Amino acid sequence: MDASDTRRGQPSLHRQFEARHAGRRWHGSAEAFGMGMAILLGDLLLCWTDEMFQASGLPADALRRGRPVLDRMRTEVFAGQYLDLLGQAAGDETLSGALRVVELKTTKYTIERPLHLGAALAGGSADPAGGDGPLAAAYTAYGLPLGVAFQLRDDILGVFGDPAQTGKPAGDDVREGKRTVLLAIARERATAGQAQVIDGYLGDPLLDETGTAEVRAAITATGAVAECERMIGRRVSEAIAALEGAPMTGEASEALAELAVAATARDG
Amino acid sequence: MDASDTRRGQPSLHRQFEARHAGRRWHGSAEAFGMGMAILLGDLLLCWTDEMFQASGLPADALRRGRPVLDRMRTEVFAGQYLDLLGQAAGDETLSGALRVVELKTTKYTIERPLHLGAALAGGSADPAGGDGPLAAAYTAYGLPLGVAFQLRDDILGVFGDPAQTGKPAGDDVREGKRTVLLAIARERATAGQAQVIDGYLGDPLLDETGTAEVRAAITATGAVAECERMIGRRVSEAIAALEGAPMTGEASEALAELAVAATARDG
Repeated sequence: MDASDTRRGQPSLHRQFEARHAGRRWHGSAEAFGMGMAILLGDLLLCWTDEMFQASGLPADALRRGRPVLDRMRTEVFAGQYLDLLGQAAGDETLSGALRVVELKTTKYTIERPLHLGAALAGGSADPAGGDGPLAAAYTAYGLPLGVAFQLRDDILGVFGDPAQTGKPAGDDVREGKRTVLLAIARERATAGQAQVIDGYLGDPLLDETGTAEVRAAITATGAVAECERMIGRRVSEAIAALEGAPMTGEASEALAELAVAATARDG
Repeated sequence: MDASDTRRGQPSLHRQFEARHAGRRWHGSAEAFGMGMAILLGDLLLCWTDEMFQASGLPADALRRGRPVLDRMRTEVFAGQYLDLLGQAAGDETLSGALRVVELKTTKYTIERPLHLGAALAGGSADPAGGDGPLAAAYTAYGLPLGVAFQLRDDILGVFGDPAQTGKPAGDDVREGKRTVLLAIARERATAGQAQVIDGYLGDPLLDETGTAEVRAAITATGAVAECERMIGRRVSEAIAALEGAPMTGEASEALAELAVAATARDG
């Protein structure tokens, strides 16, 4: 779901096909060709996820229990992406709007539903609709705050991260004009001067090192980074607290607690 | 797989979202917004095909037999679409290139594999890989020529069809510059004068009624329409002949023979 053109230095697929088209002087629009090929490959990979799930070798019973969770998870992530595109277009820059997208698009897809899926495949008490057994409830109570914390860490890295570590250019979220929670908080708290710096660079494809440094300083000065760190800390604690008394072994609970810390650590 | 903007008078989804974006004066590019929404909805619908298949209520055994056929069918149609985009870009206008795309993209997806899928779901002799039982072989021998005939009829309708009947603007394939078998034959047989008319209008988005009439006359004069009609006739006969001695009831064989005629009839 990331439209970034460079991940670990490799142009994304639509750019690679576009370049091939341009290099060979083929007919028609190189851009449309690259886009068409990328859509096609995305569709193929999407189909292959089903093929892999069904051909995973898990017992038929397990697949039958897991299937509705997988289905619901995918529909939810599309709904989240829909709201994200809609909000971006309609100019929804509120914190509540940004958090709603994070909840639908990241927390459920990245953490809560995969836990429900695992529980369903293993024959745990997670019910097929992804929800109301005590284990499923514990996973939800753990997964939702952790998912938000994970995304907030990603928001911070998206502006302040080291490209060598993140695999993305410095300040990439600013360059792309992403409506992140971090940026929503920064814009809510910004003085007129800070807002001018932030809005001036948001979505600027030519953002350079100097601009990145300026926008970083402005965002930090609003207090938004410190607020995000506090939100991360609170949500990680909440996630770990949800594991207490959950119907799982001490080993499982400990592994999940470690995961919560690792997934939200400052060094990405 | 049809990129046409108008089907039965309704703009396609990316145009509807683009218009909404433009009408509400939202942020960013209306075109990119429309495209993003259409990609997203396509992905969602693709996932729902799996959901519907698995939730169809068919016995688990039937689903297990049908699954590999469905998987192979989808991978094949993506391969066909890939070759189609590639051939269009690279300017492959040969008859053999056009036929290869038809075989991969239309005949297997529209006729052969659905028959294999039905056989697998019903517990017939079609093997799971979609292939070598006597019933599967009969379906292949019936489906491949019929698929080509079906596409050739579509090629003719794409240039000569009545919009009221096809739901597409007159001469739509010419306007879109589609590399159909009909156009490949016409270009191979065209005199210099005929080629000039055909190439002059191919891919012209502004093709009007006068142009459509001119290009129709030029294509007909090459003899390409008559040749396509002959190819259709031969392939329908071939498909029907393949039903003789096939391991199915007389009722089934008769229904398939009627289908072969109905799917390739002149009145669309």
